[in-house]
Amino acid sequence: MQGLNIYSLLKKLFPICRSITGNGVRETLRIIKEVIPLDIYEVTSGTRVFDWTIPKEWNVQDAWVKFNGQKVIDFKLNNLHLVNYSVPVNCKIHLSELKKHIFTHPDYIPYVTSYYKESWGFCLKQEDFYRLEEGEYEVFIDTSLTSGSLTYGELFIKGKKKEEILFTCYICHPSMGNDNLSGTVLLTYLAKELLSKDLEYSYRFLFIPETIGAITWLAKNDVSNIKYGLVCTCVGDKGKFTYKRSRRDSKINKIVEKVLLDSGENFKLVDFFPNGSDERQFCSPGFNLEVGSLMRSMYNEFKEYHTSGDDLNFVQPYFLEDSYLKYLEVVYILENNKKYINLNPYCEPNLGSRGLYNLTGGVKEVPVSNIAIKWVLNLSDGENDLLDIAIRSGIRFREIVIATERLKEVGLIIVV
Amino acid sequence: MQGLNIYSLLKKLFPICRSITGNGVRETLRIIKEVIPLDIYEVTSGTRVFDWTIPKEWNVQDAWVKFNGQKVIDFKLNNLHLVNYSVPVNCKIHLSELKKHIFTHPDYIPYVTSYYKESWGFCLKQEDFYRLEEGEYEVFIDTSLTSGSLTYGELFIKGKKKEEILFTCYICHPSMGNDNLSGTVLLTYLAKELLSKDLEYSYRFLFIPETIGAITWLAKNDVSNIKYGLVCTCVGDKGKFTYKRSRRDSKINKIVEKVLLDSGENFKLVDFFPNGSDERQFCSPGFNLEVGSLMRSMYNEFKEYHTSGDDLNFVQPYFLEDSYLKYLEVVYILENNKKYINLNPYCEPNLGSRGLYNLTGGVKEVPVSNIAIKWVLNLSDGENDLLDIAIRSGIRFREIVIATERLKEVGLIIVV
Amino acid sequence: MQGLNIYSLLKKLFPICRSITGNGVRETLRIIKEVIPLDIYEVTSGTRVFDWTIPKEWNVQDAWVKFNGQKVIDFKLNNLHLVNYSVPVNCKIHLSELKKHIFTHPDYIPYVTSYYKESWGFCLKQEDFYRLEEGEYEVFIDTSLTSGSLTYGELFIKGKKKEEILFTCYICHPSMGNDNLSGTVLLTYLAKELLSKDLEYSYRFLFIPETIGAITWLAKNDVSNIKYGLVCTCVGDKGKFTYKRSRRDSKINKIVEKVLLDSGENFKLVDFFPNGSDERQFCSPGFNLEVGSLMRSMYNEFKEYHTSGDDLNFVQPYFLEDSYLKYLEVVYILENNKKYINLNPYCEPNLGSRGLYNLTGGVKEVPVSNIAIKWVLNLSDGENDLLDIAIRSGIRFREIVIATERLKEVGLIIVV
Repeated sequence: MQGLNIYSLLKKLFPICRSITGNGVRETLRIIKEVIPLDIYEVTSGTRVFDWTIPKEWNVQDAWVKFNGQKVIDFKLNNLHLVNYSVPVNCKIHLSELKKHIFTHPDYIPYVTSYYKESWGFCLKQEDFYRLEEGEYEVFIDTSLTSGSLTYGELFIKGKKKEEILFTCYICHPSMGNDNLSGTVLLTYLAKELLSKDLEYSYRFLFIPETIGAITWLAKNDVSNIKYGLVCTCVGDKGKFTYKRSRRDSKINKIVEKVLLDSGENFKLVDFFPNGSDERQFCSPGFNLEVGSLMRSMYNEFKEYHTSGDDLNFVQPYFLEDSYLKYLEVVYILENNKKYINLNPYCEPNLGSRGLYNLTGGVKEVPVSNIAIKWVLNLSDGENDLLDIAIRSGIRFREIVIATERLKEVGLIIVV
Repeated sequence: MQGLNIYSLLKKLFPICRSITGNGVRETLRIIKEVIPLDIYEVTSGTRVFDWTIPKEWNVQDAWVKFNGQKVIDFKLNNLHLVNYSVPVNCKIHLSELKKHIFTHPDYIPYVTSYYKESWGFCLKQEDFYRLEEGEYEVFIDTSLTSGSLTYGELFIKGKKKEEILFTCYICHPSMGNDNLSGTVLLTYLAKELLSKDLEYSYRFLFIPETIGAITWLAKNDVSNIKYGLVCTCVGDKGKFTYKRSRRDSKINKIVEKVLLDSGENFKLVDFFPNGSDERQFCSPGFNLEVGSLMRSMYNEFKEYHTSGDDLNFVQPYFLEDSYLKYLEVVYILENNKKYINLNPYCEPNLGSRGLYNLTGGVKEVPVSNIAIKWVLNLSDGENDLLDIAIRSGIRFREIVIATERLKEVGLIIVV
Repeated sequence: MQGLNIYSLLKKLFPICRSITGNGVRETLRIIKEVIPLDIYEVTSGTRVFDWTIPKEWNVQDAWVKFNGQKVIDFKLNNLHLVNYSVPVNCKIHLSELKKHIFTHPDYIPYVTSYYKESWGFCLKQEDFYRLEEGEYEVFIDTSLTSGSLTYGELFIKGKKKEEILFTCYICHPSMGNDNLSGTVLLTYLAKELLSKDLEYSYRFLFIPETIGAITWLAKNDVSNIKYGLVCTCVGDKGKFTYKRSRRDSKINKIVEKVLLDSGENFKLVDFFPNGSDERQFCSPGFNLEVGSLMRSMYNEFKEYHTSGDDLNFVQPYFLEDSYLKYLEVVYILENNKKYINLNPYCEPNLGSRGLYNLTGGVKEVPVSNIAIKWVLNLSDGENDLLDIAIRSGIRFREIVIATERLKEVGLIIVV
């Protein structure tokens, strides 16, 4: 029941007011560090990263709007009320002026940011906005926007191969569950699981602010060992799975698609497009890495997206668990997808004499594992790896692995 | 409202009795020359052109059939009544004999030719044929079939590149509107438009008799500069567009298909087949040029085809205008389809700092131009031209060009 | 009416109790030899063939089970009652013990074998099984399992080319009609037909026990001349055709698919899979020959498969004839699929002057042969053979051949 642990961590992280910089990120990473080891990096404001500059660090203590001495908007009730990166304000203004600083949504408090333009604002559900009466309002925003640093966390797990699999999520959103605390907590527990294993590939986990964090990480690191990667986001809701393919053709696409196909569930495949999350940076033409994104309901496609509707009810332990298992299955294929050679390539080997075949012939029902054995033998010609065999045969990858193990035991195939 | 001008020219040319040679073609070209400059070529009868020989020149003054002194068939009422290329006749014959020389159609006067077999005949609607009474008929055909020449017109418009785009139509059909006066008049006005422009490609317009004219032109000219081409025919009726692809894979196919896709209208794609119009010659295996054909209702697929039903009502200014705009759009893509390089290929460039991005993030609606900008940046890697980007992104070509212009202005991309 | 001859031979062979070795196979081959010449091979028990060993030879005189002195199961009534390769038995046992040796099927006597495990058994329809009363049974199996040999037949027909087409069937099943006497008798008459012809390709016909026979043949022969092949099985029932493709891409797949397409009937295409018949050996990775299988209802997909329901009523002369004609059509394409070169590749040649075209133009209906002529001319560029032309044009292969003959006669094309 890993889903409950994942959800517990999500609940703990939920109240924190995160942004692309500041203490919310630090606190988030500190709590994750209670579960897995993390290297924490701080990159100073003003640092040049490709075409961008690390912005000033933003922190927030409090923010509210009062009318007749009563708080009518209160950051402490929901941190989405405050436009993220709002500058400090302390003034009295008329409603007409205040309205210019208010963003609304028909059903929820919307999530609005202003990282690269100094301004301030509040966010309200439409009905609360309409309820504001004529008159003078007291506005108080106790934030700071000062030279500081951008913070991110990283965990590298060394496997037998130098080639790395990149799992990345973003830790810059305030109180929203699916986008993207769900990705953050899933990867935390995925990393915890992989830490306990003997691995073929090396694995790198990034807990970074979206966009500027990905750009920063790419500017400071060598990507030449990155074989494949996935951006983990929106994995806690009840929607069916969506896989957004990498920009270029890649085996990671085939792997994730096979995981989804083998699940027997409905799912949706989406070709790469240059909007979305950090795949935009990893798949920018200079890098063009083989990085896709495995989600449930895709960002922008659920109505609670980027609002207060994306709350602790919108994400559920069951769906977090289900998503976690899909990510584990991706790792399973990565770790087990080898190429074998049939040592008896001329005609079929005698399976019966090796205990791999029902010796009373003519029975109609052929056990599925027997056909898996025949596929592995037939396609293990040095061209096909196990994933190729599983795809061509239409047999589940795990069943192909079981057949492979049996054939290896009796010496009919060897790994290339 | 170019459609009205195009239709006016069509009406003016409609009454002329054209054939593959003779004064009908000369008169047609003379009238076109009032709109655009044309080089007129005469190729003498008997000239060998590949496997063919330029036939004798045919001219017609009059033709009729009389019964009891009354004209029952009259070329002057409709030039389709006379089989095109009929030899001179002046005789009296019985109905049974006359019938051997009559071609009928259930609803219209059919269009029949006999270019390469010396014979004569008349064409009638079926009901008029059945109305012919027993008895003797006077047949008079005042034509001449003598050594002369085959006539065609050509206009070359020089652009920056030596590579040419070929637009070709045929001017050999008597009074029919869609097949193919519509193609002739559309190309006349397309040429007129291009004459006023500063062009990348060079453009060549051919006004030739079908088949023998195309063969003649190909025999007398070097085709090595021809990059792409379109045969313009059947562009005046109300049918949806049909694009017949070139024999070999070609970018011209992608261009025309994108034009039709971007229009949002229904259309039909047809693979090359070796019947039809002059694409048969341009796509013969020795040349194998990248020439397709953009039509509305395809020849043979509308019931008025090659009959008197293909008249001045069957073609309409609105549809001629619509077809003209599609051809202009093909030229637009040809002229603007360049390849650019993203000068900041590592991660996304900072669009906000360049005024290309809404700086208040988190708003759900992304303006379409913004996604066009991201696609252009993402795919401008030296592999993709703008057409490739427009096709992969599913965005209209013109919108991709607008995004490209903005990116060029701010120095983020340069043309290759 | 070849179907009747094929069916007569099938009826004659039906009663024989065949197995993978023994006199049943010899008697079967002797009868086939009355129709076509065959080379008969005997391979001694114990001979090593790749990963396998030729088993002992099995022969059967009689087998029955008695209760109260009455035969309740009798091999002489239906040879499927005895598990194929049963060892000799002569004993009295109780019903409870007997039941361990009985195999049942709800509707028919099932077909069961035990080639590679020494055991014995009987096969019954379920209702007959349930009818067996408590008590003691007398079991008598008069078989022999002794060192002997495996027998197979082969016919090689030499054509102009060294390259061979392999037609193979299996002759190891006792009294069943569709699987696989139908294949055996079809190939017998196909061979008879080809013996009377002047052939381009060489043809090799194999009449072998399934699996071990194919392995034996492959172990003893050089396959380097085998160009394509088909396994002929299940060709006598009323089902629509099924073509199982070869493991690798092959022209044989295109040929068979075109034969089926040209027939205008429904059919089914199945990608290679490593279960089934001897294509498993021919398509094993060491050989990877271009061998498919053309069937009607595929093995395992009809309910009478491997039971006494697959009897002389289940197969019918009409369907055998129809299948035979499809195999002949495959040979027709093989023999006639050449590549030609258009000697007038620049523009269309003048077809009218060569009597290949209706000289009165403008008639709507174009005779199909005319379009076939145009396709052959247009695609005879040295790249395409006649099959390619037939496939791209969608015209029946035989019609393309007719057009080709006409063009060859008038000297417009020559064979490459």
